[in-house]
Amino acid sequence: MKIVVHTDQAEQWQTALSEALPDATVLTSAAPAKERQGADYLAVWKAPGHLLAEQTALKGIINLGAGVDHLLATPERPKDVPIVKLRDAGMGELMADYVLYGVLHFYRSLDHYRLQQPDAQWQPHEVVEKSQWPVGVLGLGAIGRAVASALYQAGFPVLGWSRSPKELRDIRCLHGDAGLDELLGQVQCVVTILPDTAATRHILDAERLARLPQGASVINPGRGSLIDEAALLEALGDGSAPGHLRGALLDVFEREPLPTESPLWRHPRVIITPHMAAPTPLADAIDQVISYVHAFEANEALETVNPDEGY
Amino acid sequence: MKIVVHTDQAEQWQTALSEALPDATVLTSAAPAKERQGADYLAVWKAPGHLLAEQTALKGIINLGAGVDHLLATPERPKDVPIVKLRDAGMGELMADYVLYGVLHFYRSLDHYRLQQPDAQWQPHEVVEKSQWPVGVLGLGAIGRAVASALYQAGFPVLGWSRSPKELRDIRCLHGDAGLDELLGQVQCVVTILPDTAATRHILDAERLARLPQGASVINPGRGSLIDEAALLEALGDGSAPGHLRGALLDVFEREPLPTESPLWRHPRVIITPHMAAPTPLADAIDQVISYVHAFEANEALETVNPDEGY
Repeated sequence: MKIVVHTDQAEQWQTALSEALPDATVLTSAAPAKERQGADYLAVWKAPGHLLAEQTALKGIINLGAGVDHLLATPERPKDVPIVKLRDAGMGELMADYVLYGVLHFYRSLDHYRLQQPDAQWQPHEVVEKSQWPVGVLGLGAIGRAVASALYQAGFPVLGWSRSPKELRDIRCLHGDAGLDELLGQVQCVVTILPDTAATRHILDAERLARLPQGASVINPGRGSLIDEAALLEALGDGSAPGHLRGALLDVFEREPLPTESPLWRHPRVIITPHMAAPTPLADAIDQVISYVHAFEANEALETVNPDEGY
Repeated sequence: MKIVVHTDQAEQWQTALSEALPDATVLTSAAPAKERQGADYLAVWKAPGHLLAEQTALKGIINLGAGVDHLLATPERPKDVPIVKLRDAGMGELMADYVLYGVLHFYRSLDHYRLQQPDAQWQPHEVVEKSQWPVGVLGLGAIGRAVASALYQAGFPVLGWSRSPKELRDIRCLHGDAGLDELLGQVQCVVTILPDTAATRHILDAERLARLPQGASVINPGRGSLIDEAALLEALGDGSAPGHLRGALLDVFEREPLPTESPLWRHPRVIITPHMAAPTPLADAIDQVISYVHAFEANEALETVNPDEGY
């Protein structure tokens, strides 16, 4: 069996997979093309097209992350090869911690204290009951569910939204366009954890941001394409006074790295993090890839990506 | 029965207690002195001495907060009247949320991202396993235990410290001077939730702060007296580069409001909040006071404050 790995940490992957699968030949994409050809599996993150084009005997492609938009948009992708992707793999906890941090930042007025500090302004703000501070989670895949559950455990009412209907314990689930409008009208904070597809691009546009209550906040640890950045800046106001929205915590952007000239960097009510909300914990991810390879080899049923749906 | 209330929200207290105890006369400290005299109970927060001096028939004093330092330091306090204080009363959750926010701030490098943002610096930092990021909690009263438990639930190894030995599930408990030194040498973040007593004043002084590992952080939602602010500033460095400590989240100070001229306001690695970590949620607190009054009237055993220990 031959596996070709393409990712930032390819050598660590090569070592770990070689140990766990002693009968396999594990190569990184830095190996010569002749050696790479004829692979059974690709384990890849944002692979260049030629790595896909050169393969002729692939049994499966393992996407080393939860977002498959890059892979699906690669024209050289063989259309008949099943794709699996890392599901959660410890990312749920990382993402939940990131979102909980952001929710507490706004709920407990840390954003206001941050603006007060340069002026040495000692001004406490009231803490409302959590029951009065519902949070909306857009996207109820494995990671979205982990985030929604963590927020509920922390005491916040949680409204969840997905394109098609879902049922989850403790979470009020809405769906479709009408459900999205209903959710946005009711939450103090909205969290976007949707995949990047044609249907989700700019799902938070000017009109939808305007549906949020005055003083609501936005947390985007999902995909940069989900929010119309120009509309978000408009809704935040010029920073000298609160706009329609009170602030945003953003981890992903329409262009990454976020260009130096983006006004988001300098907006006093925006916190920028450099796409760090949910790095894949390596050990968890490796375990999952190994179990995928075993399942492919044993012809077990696997939950594969549906390219038409985009996730 | 007569109850005199002194606190910022005295009228809300008066209304709630009158409803719950229809046979009682409930007055605020704004009532004329003649009416206030002969009270059975004082329910007070930072009461002026004369309110204590004028009473002759007190059965009990209910301290409307967890910290009794102000009450014990009031010379007019009648020494033979038992004191009870609000225990937790929802403060545990508020404090736990505040501390979890601060721990995540440092653990997930939000402090670094905050410093990078003005320079539009896109530089992710590695997230170590939580198992490599132990947190120390100084003070294991009702609130300290709630905080320690929440941090453990969030996945962090927790070391707890108290003056005398304690045993808690899931928390490694240390005590005494040697235990404190041992704890400080092992934690990435130390949280101070001790009462303000002669024994805890400046418990984190220059020598103890130096015992923390390079790059550790400090969270103080407890009492301003616990930390030597001059020593903390020294350990943080001048802000242009990381000092021995990486940063601090501070809610309480040696003088409050924190004086405008304090360099803490302007230190780039310090977050200042205006004593807001654990405001007493009114409804919870009122319920607790009512149960105290019933217990006093029924001569039930009550856990009272020990003035010699200071808590």
